[in-house]
Amino acid sequence: MIETVCFDNEAVVILDQSKLPDEVAFRPCHTPEEVAEAICSMKVRGAPLIGVVAAFGLALGMRRFNGSAAELYDYFYSIKEMLASTRPTAVNLFWALQRMEKLYLQHRQEPAHVLGDLLLNEAEKMRQEDIAINQAMGENGQALLSPGARVMTICNAGTLATCGYGTALGVVRSAARRNKIDMVWVCETRPVLQGARLTVWELMQDNIPVTLITDSMAGYTMQLGRVDAIIVGADRIAANGDTANKIGTFPLAVLAHYHQIPFYVAAPLSTVDLSLPDGKAIVIEERHQDEVRRCSHGYVTVPEVEVFNPAFDVTPQHLISAIITEGGIITAPFAEGLKRLKEGR
Amino acid sequence: MIETVCFDNEAVVILDQSKLPDEVAFRPCHTPEEVAEAICSMKVRGAPLIGVVAAFGLALGMRRFNGSAAELYDYFYSIKEMLASTRPTAVNLFWALQRMEKLYLQHRQEPAHVLGDLLLNEAEKMRQEDIAINQAMGENGQALLSPGARVMTICNAGTLATCGYGTALGVVRSAARRNKIDMVWVCETRPVLQGARLTVWELMQDNIPVTLITDSMAGYTMQLGRVDAIIVGADRIAANGDTANKIGTFPLAVLAHYHQIPFYVAAPLSTVDLSLPDGKAIVIEERHQDEVRRCSHGYVTVPEVEVFNPAFDVTPQHLISAIITEGGIITAPFAEGLKRLKEGR
Repeated sequence: MIETVCFDNEAVVILDQSKLPDEVAFRPCHTPEEVAEAICSMKVRGAPLIGVVAAFGLALGMRRFNGSAAELYDYFYSIKEMLASTRPTAVNLFWALQRMEKLYLQHRQEPAHVLGDLLLNEAEKMRQEDIAINQAMGENGQALLSPGARVMTICNAGTLATCGYGTALGVVRSAARRNKIDMVWVCETRPVLQGARLTVWELMQDNIPVTLITDSMAGYTMQLGRVDAIIVGADRIAANGDTANKIGTFPLAVLAHYHQIPFYVAAPLSTVDLSLPDGKAIVIEERHQDEVRRCSHGYVTVPEVEVFNPAFDVTPQHLISAIITEGGIITAPFAEGLKRLKEGR
Repeated sequence: MIETVCFDNEAVVILDQSKLPDEVAFRPCHTPEEVAEAICSMKVRGAPLIGVVAAFGLALGMRRFNGSAAELYDYFYSIKEMLASTRPTAVNLFWALQRMEKLYLQHRQEPAHVLGDLLLNEAEKMRQEDIAINQAMGENGQALLSPGARVMTICNAGTLATCGYGTALGVVRSAARRNKIDMVWVCETRPVLQGARLTVWELMQDNIPVTLITDSMAGYTMQLGRVDAIIVGADRIAANGDTANKIGTFPLAVLAHYHQIPFYVAAPLSTVDLSLPDGKAIVIEERHQDEVRRCSHGYVTVPEVEVFNPAFDVTPQHLISAIITEGGIITAPFAEGLKRLKEGR
């Protein structure tokens, strides 16, 4: 299993996903600022992964601190704020930074070098937990699939979106190990093409059967009766089950509903945000217009055209058949199940 | 208004749409084979336009014929077959070639050079009729839109898909002339990007407000309440109203239904195929896998990945609010209205 993030030689080393599938390149980030830039520019992406990468970034900052003890508190919060402001939608980022903050506040009387060790250990613990959580999620979720399953997914909710194994693709992996997977239909996921670039590459590495389609072909593929289930990841799940995920997820859910195909969300409980009653309160990131104007190496349109580029959409809970978590599978009414599992941790 | 096809200096001159929006290049086709290649490779595309271009190609062939009178009949049909085999889904192609065949059979006792003149005149007549039909369709269709309308479309059903004015974009143009259009949301239309490349360019040339989105953003844009109507073209309409159009159209119709947004098809009656009872019988063209694997100038995925690349999908008639034709607006039950207008011509 490829390592998407690790700490090595006083650097946060990330797999640079903007280069895939052409090149498998690891990139050391030597400062918290470089970590923040890697998240902003989507060199690392995926809700669970950016949480852990940000945690490493905070630990890195603490280890590099060389000011006075009196300056430490403000420094910690400035780094935390910088990392928190990289991307607004995935809640795992804020969850991970809060977990680090809690540890920091418990030990804030300690000198910076001790705090640096403590925070680094915590980030590494989160990394390992993330893998174990995904394996548990995969085990839980595979039970929803029958042998011969033809699954559709969008974006990348795999090893590359996490510290390993993946969320939606973790479910696919666990099912594939039981020989249940006949096909994975991968939506290319414009504008950033995480499906075409990352999910296709990741599944081919594991010899899981894959067919690539454009996002616009999902409906026809379902209409032909070639899809048994849709499994996607999540960037934030509100208390009622409304789920923010990569732009294009909501249309898949509407199409699944129309074709009576089950629609599953696979996400760790750290993605659940009980502070939001429903999806209307989730902030949807809008990214640079050039992401849409360009594709691959060039412009695909009149360069001056106005563009709308929301990076996520919200799928209302009534279109979701089940939410797969490491604590078990939740079905409607989601509010109850999400609260129970989230607070029972 | 730009000329998408004309006959000049013994050549069928087409606007090479594969070069747009970077370059406005006209390409003379000196043989019927070159005309067929231009259709196959989508240098010209759009159901009404490829019909007229094929008609010009057949006339060109007749004018170039230099065999004996005994060979003429077989020659005519070999050219007709070659042009008919370029693309399978749009019925306008077969409709146009049949109209040319009818004229040929009426005058088959004439020498080739007379037939060449007759066929060329007929092709030119079809070209002019197409523009007039689109203007009538625009006039009919604009009545469905209210001032301030925000319209969504996919692919290019404009001047560039026709001999001028357009079908779906003809409706937009007629509405814009009455100051009814606040915004046209253009879906980029992967894999060939006719929305991003052609529709954006065409609307910007006419100073009609346009915003480009990826196909995956259509659902979220509707969910935000920013779309008042969807208008698309058609490649073939079955007797019951089921409509084949560019891949990605059917998902828009499902999403429109979910959001209770009217979904309109604008197409000339030559697109209606009464010989097919419903959409199940429409042949859906599958094109080269590299169209999906590539975008702009390079591969966007693992080059060896398996791809499914249907060029069209079929929208069931129950998702269509109205079909806009040059003969009037047809609403459910479509079978009746389509038959009446089609046979009343």
